[in-house]
Amino acid sequence: MSLKPWDGRFSEPTDKAVESFTASIDVDRRLYNYDIDGSIAHCRTLARAKILTRQEAVDLEEGLEKVRQEIARGEMAFYDRLEDIHMHVEDRLSAHVGDLARKLHTGRSRNDQIAVDERLYLKAETRGVLVQLKDFRTALVDLAEANIHVVMPGYTHLQRAQPVLFAHHMMAYYEMVSRDFDRFAAALDRMDVMPLGSAALAGTTYDLDRAYTAGLLGFSKISENSMDAVSDRDFMLEFAAAASICMTHLSRLSEELVLWSSAEFRFVELPDAFCTGSSIMPQKKNPDIPELVRGRTGRVTGNLVNLLTLMKSLPLAYNRDMQEDKVPLMEIVDTLKACLDIYSRMIPNIRVNPEVTEKAANSGFQNATDLADYMVAKGMAFRQAHACVGRAVAYALDCGKELHELSLQELQQFDPGIEEDVYEAMSVARMIDRRKVYGGTAGANVSAAIARARKHLVNSASEIPGA
Amino acid sequence: MSLKPWDGRFSEPTDKAVESFTASIDVDRRLYNYDIDGSIAHCRTLARAKILTRQEAVDLEEGLEKVRQEIARGEMAFYDRLEDIHMHVEDRLSAHVGDLARKLHTGRSRNDQIAVDERLYLKAETRGVLVQLKDFRTALVDLAEANIHVVMPGYTHLQRAQPVLFAHHMMAYYEMVSRDFDRFAAALDRMDVMPLGSAALAGTTYDLDRAYTAGLLGFSKISENSMDAVSDRDFMLEFAAAASICMTHLSRLSEELVLWSSAEFRFVELPDAFCTGSSIMPQKKNPDIPELVRGRTGRVTGNLVNLLTLMKSLPLAYNRDMQEDKVPLMEIVDTLKACLDIYSRMIPNIRVNPEVTEKAANSGFQNATDLADYMVAKGMAFRQAHACVGRAVAYALDCGKELHELSLQELQQFDPGIEEDVYEAMSVARMIDRRKVYGGTAGANVSAAIARARKHLVNSASEIPGA
Amino acid sequence: MSLKPWDGRFSEPTDKAVESFTASIDVDRRLYNYDIDGSIAHCRTLARAKILTRQEAVDLEEGLEKVRQEIARGEMAFYDRLEDIHMHVEDRLSAHVGDLARKLHTGRSRNDQIAVDERLYLKAETRGVLVQLKDFRTALVDLAEANIHVVMPGYTHLQRAQPVLFAHHMMAYYEMVSRDFDRFAAALDRMDVMPLGSAALAGTTYDLDRAYTAGLLGFSKISENSMDAVSDRDFMLEFAAAASICMTHLSRLSEELVLWSSAEFRFVELPDAFCTGSSIMPQKKNPDIPELVRGRTGRVTGNLVNLLTLMKSLPLAYNRDMQEDKVPLMEIVDTLKACLDIYSRMIPNIRVNPEVTEKAANSGFQNATDLADYMVAKGMAFRQAHACVGRAVAYALDCGKELHELSLQELQQFDPGIEEDVYEAMSVARMIDRRKVYGGTAGANVSAAIARARKHLVNSASEIPGA
Amino acid sequence: MSLKPWDGRFSEPTDKAVESFTASIDVDRRLYNYDIDGSIAHCRTLARAKILTRQEAVDLEEGLEKVRQEIARGEMAFYDRLEDIHMHVEDRLSAHVGDLARKLHTGRSRNDQIAVDERLYLKAETRGVLVQLKDFRTALVDLAEANIHVVMPGYTHLQRAQPVLFAHHMMAYYEMVSRDFDRFAAALDRMDVMPLGSAALAGTTYDLDRAYTAGLLGFSKISENSMDAVSDRDFMLEFAAAASICMTHLSRLSEELVLWSSAEFRFVELPDAFCTGSSIMPQKKNPDIPELVRGRTGRVTGNLVNLLTLMKSLPLAYNRDMQEDKVPLMEIVDTLKACLDIYSRMIPNIRVNPEVTEKAANSGFQNATDLADYMVAKGMAFRQAHACVGRAVAYALDCGKELHELSLQELQQFDPGIEEDVYEAMSVARMIDRRKVYGGTAGANVSAAIARARKHLVNSASEIPGA
Repeated sequence: MSLKPWDGRFSEPTDKAVESFTASIDVDRRLYNYDIDGSIAHCRTLARAKILTRQEAVDLEEGLEKVRQEIARGEMAFYDRLEDIHMHVEDRLSAHVGDLARKLHTGRSRNDQIAVDERLYLKAETRGVLVQLKDFRTALVDLAEANIHVVMPGYTHLQRAQPVLFAHHMMAYYEMVSRDFDRFAAALDRMDVMPLGSAALAGTTYDLDRAYTAGLLGFSKISENSMDAVSDRDFMLEFAAAASICMTHLSRLSEELVLWSSAEFRFVELPDAFCTGSSIMPQKKNPDIPELVRGRTGRVTGNLVNLLTLMKSLPLAYNRDMQEDKVPLMEIVDTLKACLDIYSRMIPNIRVNPEVTEKAANSGFQNATDLADYMVAKGMAFRQAHACVGRAVAYALDCGKELHELSLQELQQFDPGIEEDVYEAMSVARMIDRRKVYGGTAGANVSAAIARARKHLVNSASEIPGA
Repeated sequence: MSLKPWDGRFSEPTDKAVESFTASIDVDRRLYNYDIDGSIAHCRTLARAKILTRQEAVDLEEGLEKVRQEIARGEMAFYDRLEDIHMHVEDRLSAHVGDLARKLHTGRSRNDQIAVDERLYLKAETRGVLVQLKDFRTALVDLAEANIHVVMPGYTHLQRAQPVLFAHHMMAYYEMVSRDFDRFAAALDRMDVMPLGSAALAGTTYDLDRAYTAGLLGFSKISENSMDAVSDRDFMLEFAAAASICMTHLSRLSEELVLWSSAEFRFVELPDAFCTGSSIMPQKKNPDIPELVRGRTGRVTGNLVNLLTLMKSLPLAYNRDMQEDKVPLMEIVDTLKACLDIYSRMIPNIRVNPEVTEKAANSGFQNATDLADYMVAKGMAFRQAHACVGRAVAYALDCGKELHELSLQELQQFDPGIEEDVYEAMSVARMIDRRKVYGGTAGANVSAAIARARKHLVNSASEIPGA
Repeated sequence: MSLKPWDGRFSEPTDKAVESFTASIDVDRRLYNYDIDGSIAHCRTLARAKILTRQEAVDLEEGLEKVRQEIARGEMAFYDRLEDIHMHVEDRLSAHVGDLARKLHTGRSRNDQIAVDERLYLKAETRGVLVQLKDFRTALVDLAEANIHVVMPGYTHLQRAQPVLFAHHMMAYYEMVSRDFDRFAAALDRMDVMPLGSAALAGTTYDLDRAYTAGLLGFSKISENSMDAVSDRDFMLEFAAAASICMTHLSRLSEELVLWSSAEFRFVELPDAFCTGSSIMPQKKNPDIPELVRGRTGRVTGNLVNLLTLMKSLPLAYNRDMQEDKVPLMEIVDTLKACLDIYSRMIPNIRVNPEVTEKAANSGFQNATDLADYMVAKGMAFRQAHACVGRAVAYALDCGKELHELSLQELQQFDPGIEEDVYEAMSVARMIDRRKVYGGTAGANVSAAIARARKHLVNSASEIPGA
Repeated sequence: MSLKPWDGRFSEPTDKAVESFTASIDVDRRLYNYDIDGSIAHCRTLARAKILTRQEAVDLEEGLEKVRQEIARGEMAFYDRLEDIHMHVEDRLSAHVGDLARKLHTGRSRNDQIAVDERLYLKAETRGVLVQLKDFRTALVDLAEANIHVVMPGYTHLQRAQPVLFAHHMMAYYEMVSRDFDRFAAALDRMDVMPLGSAALAGTTYDLDRAYTAGLLGFSKISENSMDAVSDRDFMLEFAAAASICMTHLSRLSEELVLWSSAEFRFVELPDAFCTGSSIMPQKKNPDIPELVRGRTGRVTGNLVNLLTLMKSLPLAYNRDMQEDKVPLMEIVDTLKACLDIYSRMIPNIRVNPEVTEKAANSGFQNATDLADYMVAKGMAFRQAHACVGRAVAYALDCGKELHELSLQELQQFDPGIEEDVYEAMSVARMIDRRKVYGGTAGANVSAAIARARKHLVNSASEIPGA
């Protein structure tokens, strides 16, 4: 007996190797809950359109819930022969309700069915990512606040540049992750479109109330064009792009944590519980989490490339190539979620070494700019002051001293206008305090930024659609 | 005499090969207008803060406008030695206003200066892309409307599946491009953040009114964190991702135009003015435009990968690697704009061959689904009807006939319930007409979709921020 | 009691979430055979260096073989806590031989151990790919030979250009796949380097005979530099690049098979056993295999990007990021092998429709070039002849005829020198026959190319190293 | 009058915007020398086949040399209207030799002409890259040898692991770059195939001696299949992949140079002549070269993705998409060459700070492994020794001491078997000296590796084909 839903036209059975090559059940079985949700909504819509009787709809819905339980309990056997999750569900449904199961396929195709499954899946995952991003932002703000008085060198080109507050540095990541939140929220809105009713590609011939279906499934919009509805994977591409950008941020933070954990920096101590050692070198304590997060950036970017390559040049409407969208999408989702989760757990346990960062902030001529500003305040043109300070730095380097370790006399060689108050101007505390422009590193600024972030985070809970 | 703004500390002159390797002037000279706009706004802000006198500000602004004219007239000589556009402008400015030019650098670094230049550039280009997308959408709607009665086969797996209206097919692209519009508009909003005042990384020590600067430059927001402001390139990544998705759409349309222009399909005739021939084969008329657009998809995707690779794992704040952001960004912008432009020109001149598409719509058993639906309407279960029709197709294939070319007697072999009205049910016109569900291909639907699109396009003119 | 091989230095146990995040056992368990092979070779090398007694070596080897059997029989339980395959094997080994198991780690680190595992794995897989490529080439040659008399249009720009033999077209793919073979063979040679003895990064302190180990494991070379040996993943990158190029070839063949299976082309019939149908459209027979192969191209390219992104900017020597190399590598290997396998199965069953391809070869003015050549042979300059034929094509298009359907009188309008023998010159058979330059499509050429290929394939069996 | 070589069939002139969109002359003008070389070889081949008279061939060749001189002197004007370099050359050739110019196109198409141009270009560039790689390897060996006595920490996970010789670390890069050399040499061999004679796609109808043409142009092989010859871009993909791997190596070295130049590491001093400063921070000396090289890695990888995306799914034979291969290829070539050049210049001028690296080598418990080995030598099992040392490290950390700063009594707490000779065993010199296994960091080993490299470099000069 035939098990394929389409083999009337065929004269040969499918080759076993072909079944295995073409089956997607290993991957799309993860979508079973969404598939059953979609089927129940479709079932109710058919009933509303009088295509199913009330009783038939009730029987089908009960049958579908039974299948859901069976899968949840691990009682479902999966076969390549049954290709995908849609056919597995229908096959079991037949066992419960007999031929009635076949009616469920009225006015629906696997093309719009997989589209609705994937959108339901990705909407749920995106909401989850939004919650994680909120937690991650909270962890960053907490870490910033807990270290509000810690100074450290700010770097450009990995060279010490100007002292900043550690909290200011952390709040830069807060800003990045806030943009990520906005991008995922926008992606969520754009993916929130219900495709059922599009059938294979041209629209169903049945008079289905698609808005009703959308309401049942929690969609805010229905698709405008049936061919687009079954061939569009923009929602995945946009999610994948947002995830790649987010992972780029995580990779930057990871790089810094790896640097800061090195013997050379020693700015932070990662919690023992988040590190591993070496099987051969007993002294090692490795920053595995940041390394692995950094390493997984490539997986997300690579899968974005996978999806873009996949969709390139496909004619309308559905092509079987699109079956291959699930592996990269799920890898992106799983990787991003795991990285956000582990970071939200680890960040609260990072211990900063304030004496190390402060010592570093006091060395490397980071007060050179402020010395130049001091000279400008005393009347010199900026570019000229910059050059004078450049020479002072060269001189100090020769002496093995910092600028603030030079005597007043020595300093006056480079600008006779320099006075005793120059030492105060060159102190780390004063330098930080002077950056009080909006967005600058002055303590009051950073505290205000933290307060704004706290307020925003309270509000953003309600911003997560459907959460 | 030294021309470098930083060489006080150095004991050797820069190697010539290094000047050439590190210079970005070949690329960033394109930003000169934005650089000068930014400098004028900074100049006014310095004046407002009393760091410059009114007269100094006026002199600087006049000098900057002179430099702008010199560059516009091609009178500026560019040298690797002067590294970048900022230094070229300042160098010429010095020629006009002398040492005063150096004061312009007060409270500003090249780190925030390049960030403002790039944002001004990309905002302008994004607005341009939005206008182009509007034109492109209009061209698609026009083409759809002009061919509103043309039927063609709808395809899945590049196999004829069910007849659709050519206009419906075009409106699927309208939907894709509408999403592109939304994505670029969202990207524009997120990039609309003014970074000046962040200085090198920690914020300027001068009391600058950053909101005032933002207002002068047409920014709606100012950056929240100075370290983020100078190290963030999200706005490029997001633009690049939106462009990659948009090019994916263009590649799909291109693929279809190439297919439809082939001798095998002959669905459309591309205008001679948009095709080229062969130097060796006189009969050839090649669909060069779609081929080249399809081919350029890789350039945009590749440059997205370039940018993601570039930014991966960079510690805060500015790193010189980021200089390399401009080549990929500009290649993406230029490629996308050129492709949108050429398509908006070509699409109005595409000629559809309605008799060819109609003949194709009538063959290949595309009425098989509707025959199954007919059987269901007569009482058969869908899956069973599907199987019966499968056998009918196999039979018809053997006879070398289409389903609607079978006699009633022949058809009744597969379902005795079939009656004379089956032929009307299997006609292309009827098939299309039956897909009247929202989003389906029925004529009334497609006309309504076109009307909605027209209305939306009128409104979307005002949606382009700053346009 | 502690199970971690490194926790002497740690004050906190590893967080459970961290164990799960950092474990690689789900992936690297596939390497168990290679891991055990490597351990046995290491064990014998330790014995040879008198670091183990003969008896200890025998006991360890027996223990390792027991572990191998346990894993093969599915009796091994895998835990995140035990991180990776190395520790799982050692853990079970301890159960069999007690504390002796710990001695196996003498002079070895997980850094060189994973390197040897990965190289053994990839060498075996590459040899398998070489065998598959040989089979695939054989299938292509068989298909070419079986259709040696079939003519078809050759295309440029997907426009009919000049007639070619179907066999010539297939032999183009033979050439591509032959280059793939060479690239994989070269990659195999370069990956054939034994890293054991490098220990963590600086080389073991034990006096191990590395060449002996290499011989036991079938390596032809030993690594030259211990830091390179543990931090190099070039062998993966090169394999990934070769696989990406190979998949590009498969994607091109796939595109053609999809086109050729369409109602518009109908050049080939794919075997029913390799196609699937539609759950909603009973007439559909979809070219799933080519579509899926084409779709999987992105997975290989994406994973190449993953690996390149992963390795970018990693300082020496081992970094934990590198743990992430296995997922992309294995996805590439599995995808490539599955695609090669299914194509080698399907190609012998492709049925060409010679009457369709021949009819197509006779239309679309593909004899235009030969008409031009004819005119040149009669004394006209080529460029002028090209222009004359261009006008003849335009004329014929207007008449709805092919060039060979024009009367002699009509043809003489364009070149009075044309005579009756022009018709023979414009025949498909003659056109193909005239391309007898080396590499051209003339029948004798193609037969000779097939013969050369056959001979080469016989020899290449012995070319596969270690196969 | 018409200038297009193909417009006989067309009824409309090409749209100006289309000319600009489709022209490649801005890019392929760089190929002019190769194009003229190819034309001269083709001209001689036509003469040999008696298709041109001896005098015609001489006239054409002289004309082509005149065109070459004109272009070299910058006297050639380039127009979009003339599309590409082939038509520009022919257009100027006509000015010199009149209608005879048109005969040059006999038996040739732009499809095989561009293929030969690109192969000639890439062969020359690849030979150049091989020379650069040889210079780069020499620079690495020189730097290693000049610092043969410098010790430094070896790192894993960016944590100090075990001391190594700086020279050993450099020789790891020598190994990487040697593999690059081999890969480019293999790519050069595979690209060394002459495509002329393939004409548009099916082979020329003229009896051309292709081996003769190959000999004139310095090719060692001729293409086997005309369709493959005009549609194959494997040679670019393989070059691009080799370049991506090579850039990955450069990015790793760059990352290390950036780290080592930081205030935290201070392992090396980059030459002033290769660094730049900050316009705002006078003390800064930035490692611009390594940063820019690291940043340009993305450009190469991105362009590899571009090429792979471009070629995916293109049906045979030539498609216009392939015109887009030149921009990515040339960007890869230019970027790689510039990076190799600047590194070969900079590396000889890097100054190592041996006292800093030595101090670092003596701290961070890097002798922990050797202490464990010491215990093993005294009879303890390795795993147990590892655990004991782990506890000793924890103890020493608490005391703020290194292991070798603990007293004998303290050490004996962890293993009573420890004796006075433990201090010698824990010294850096001894530790390095003990790694004398082949490939290990012992001084004698590294010196031998340097000697082998020197010898190999002398030989490899003759290995560069055609150089």
